[in-house]
Amino acid sequence: MAKVTVSGVEGEVDYDALMKEFGVEPIDEFMKKMDRKKLPPMYRRGIVFAHRNFQRIYDSIMNKKRFAVLTGFNPSGPPHLGNLLFLKQALFFQDMGADVFIPISNDETYVFKKQASLEKATQIAYEQVIPDIIALGFKKGRTHIFVSTEEKRVYELAVKLSTRTTFSTIKAIFGFDNETNPGAIFYTIVQAAHILLPQLQDFGGPKPTVVPIGIDQDPYMRLSRDLAEKVGMVKPSSTYHKFMPGLQGGKMSGSKPETCIFLSDSPETAAKKIRSAFSGGGRTLQEHKEKGGNPDVDVACQYLYFLFEESDKKISEIFSNYRNGSMFTGEVKELLIKKLAAFLKDHKKKREKAKKNIDDYMLK
Amino acid sequence: MAKVTVSGVEGEVDYDALMKEFGVEPIDEFMKKMDRKKLPPMYRRGIVFAHRNFQRIYDSIMNKKRFAVLTGFNPSGPPHLGNLLFLKQALFFQDMGADVFIPISNDETYVFKKQASLEKATQIAYEQVIPDIIALGFKKGRTHIFVSTEEKRVYELAVKLSTRTTFSTIKAIFGFDNETNPGAIFYTIVQAAHILLPQLQDFGGPKPTVVPIGIDQDPYMRLSRDLAEKVGMVKPSSTYHKFMPGLQGGKMSGSKPETCIFLSDSPETAAKKIRSAFSGGGRTLQEHKEKGGNPDVDVACQYLYFLFEESDKKISEIFSNYRNGSMFTGEVKELLIKKLAAFLKDHKKKREKAKKNIDDYMLK
Repeated sequence: MAKVTVSGVEGEVDYDALMKEFGVEPIDEFMKKMDRKKLPPMYRRGIVFAHRNFQRIYDSIMNKKRFAVLTGFNPSGPPHLGNLLFLKQALFFQDMGADVFIPISNDETYVFKKQASLEKATQIAYEQVIPDIIALGFKKGRTHIFVSTEEKRVYELAVKLSTRTTFSTIKAIFGFDNETNPGAIFYTIVQAAHILLPQLQDFGGPKPTVVPIGIDQDPYMRLSRDLAEKVGMVKPSSTYHKFMPGLQGGKMSGSKPETCIFLSDSPETAAKKIRSAFSGGGRTLQEHKEKGGNPDVDVACQYLYFLFEESDKKISEIFSNYRNGSMFTGEVKELLIKKLAAFLKDHKKKREKAKKNIDDYMLK
Repeated sequence: MAKVTVSGVEGEVDYDALMKEFGVEPIDEFMKKMDRKKLPPMYRRGIVFAHRNFQRIYDSIMNKKRFAVLTGFNPSGPPHLGNLLFLKQALFFQDMGADVFIPISNDETYVFKKQASLEKATQIAYEQVIPDIIALGFKKGRTHIFVSTEEKRVYELAVKLSTRTTFSTIKAIFGFDNETNPGAIFYTIVQAAHILLPQLQDFGGPKPTVVPIGIDQDPYMRLSRDLAEKVGMVKPSSTYHKFMPGLQGGKMSGSKPETCIFLSDSPETAAKKIRSAFSGGGRTLQEHKEKGGNPDVDVACQYLYFLFEESDKKISEIFSNYRNGSMFTGEVKELLIKKLAAFLKDHKKKREKAKKNIDDYMLK
């Protein structure tokens, strides 16, 4: 089984075992009850596979009660395809009635040394991350983006939460040692403050909040849930999604450009990256025809499955043809390249427009 | 010798030994070179007795170069006479040309559990601390008060400083353990951010800054000086003053009302407190006449010496008459009560006026 820690994931992942290990529940039962036509592929296909306390989010949707969705963004580099998994969930919940909160954690970037200066992280936030986010189609007035060090309610709430835990708790969850800098130690509380911020009186008080995360980020959720209870807020709910592979098959990471396609890549750059991406096909055309390929590890198949092939029927055909050897890696890649190019071209236009309207989407 | 730690002082204090222990220098040499008529009693009388790097403050004064004085305030309760030792130094340096910065650390109050809620600490800051400070005569436009959680540049600067040190350093300086809450751990960095805030570009960039402190607060200075160097700021200077005794002879503490006179006490309350204060006189009138009293531990003598008898000639006479038994405890107390009443009455008027002008003194 893969090793899953707060700093990432290694190896192949057994999601059933992970659910047991982390004590989370399958999300299927809720998705089956919802209008399938409204469900994005991520939910229809089990890419989002588990949850904690989703019942109260489901109830809020069904009873049209106020709730929030929150997804943080570490501005260590420009947004890439992997980030879409979080953001598309936020878009879905916004469609279902949620207010969207998006903290951009420039402090996290800096204290964990993903950028040499806080200013650089802040610059990436404003010039790259925020325009990319807005361009995805979030709604004005119901989307609240904020940069962590620029929103004083963050530090204020973190101070309030900080007295409800101890260094030994933080240490046990995050594996810190004596050489950890105090900013990294305190950032664990700041992240909890991000997650609980939608429940401040300024934003209507305690309410169900759903946080789409990768299962490797679950320790943060456990701390936030514990702190929420102690300060009289609603324990936040969470959804867990599967890992989308990096271009070479390992982890996708914004700080390793060779592992991902950025939303700001040109269609040409993206095409080049896809053409040299890891393939699950046979080593030769002949071998592929005979033995077939493995779409579960083929990067192009996976990207179509996770993000770019909306039709369940078509993705099923692609997978089956790839598996039986009648569809080749090159063909799948060209299919992805075409869809990706259309997306990137359209996204670029929207991003340029978004740059002029940033203020409309910032937390007031 | 007294034990001096960051959490306070116990027993009688040997200031020469302390200077050696903490590695600070006597401040005399500078005070002797300054215009004696302009020096407040605290400096003339050696109450402020030591310093670190005062040379650059002295040079700034002499060459009329820009410098700052900074003194923090923990709003655990209303200001008391002991706080005047810091604030009167700040007033002096303002007269000498400094810009005054006064952080009100509501976060400190709360994370060290001196108040049950952050809101309560903030309320004390605005309703009691800030009006009392302004009433002392600080100059509009050159006085910059801020409440720690309300000034976002504080957390921002703290994040920047935090990566330049480690938990083990903080632990060694402040004696934290695994049960310490992460807010208290991070507060050490926030305090350094308060001290270095005047050196931000917003306030004219790096500059000499003097911080009047009690010697028990020296560890905070050591951390701030170390961090300043690492981020290209000027190492802050500090002055150290002697401890003014509490009403019963021990430590004065705003959270123990029986140990101090608040600036908001009525003259009657203050008189009552002084009349029952610790006396250095003989146990009987007869014994006092024969053996004399000890003005060095007599609370009334000390308060006159530290704060309320401006004339060096008069304080010298009082001490000598008290020592030889010709002046009684009761007489010294009545003298202090009279001076204190005049101060409190005048201060009350000024405080009421100050309440209407708080905005003029807040950091912009």
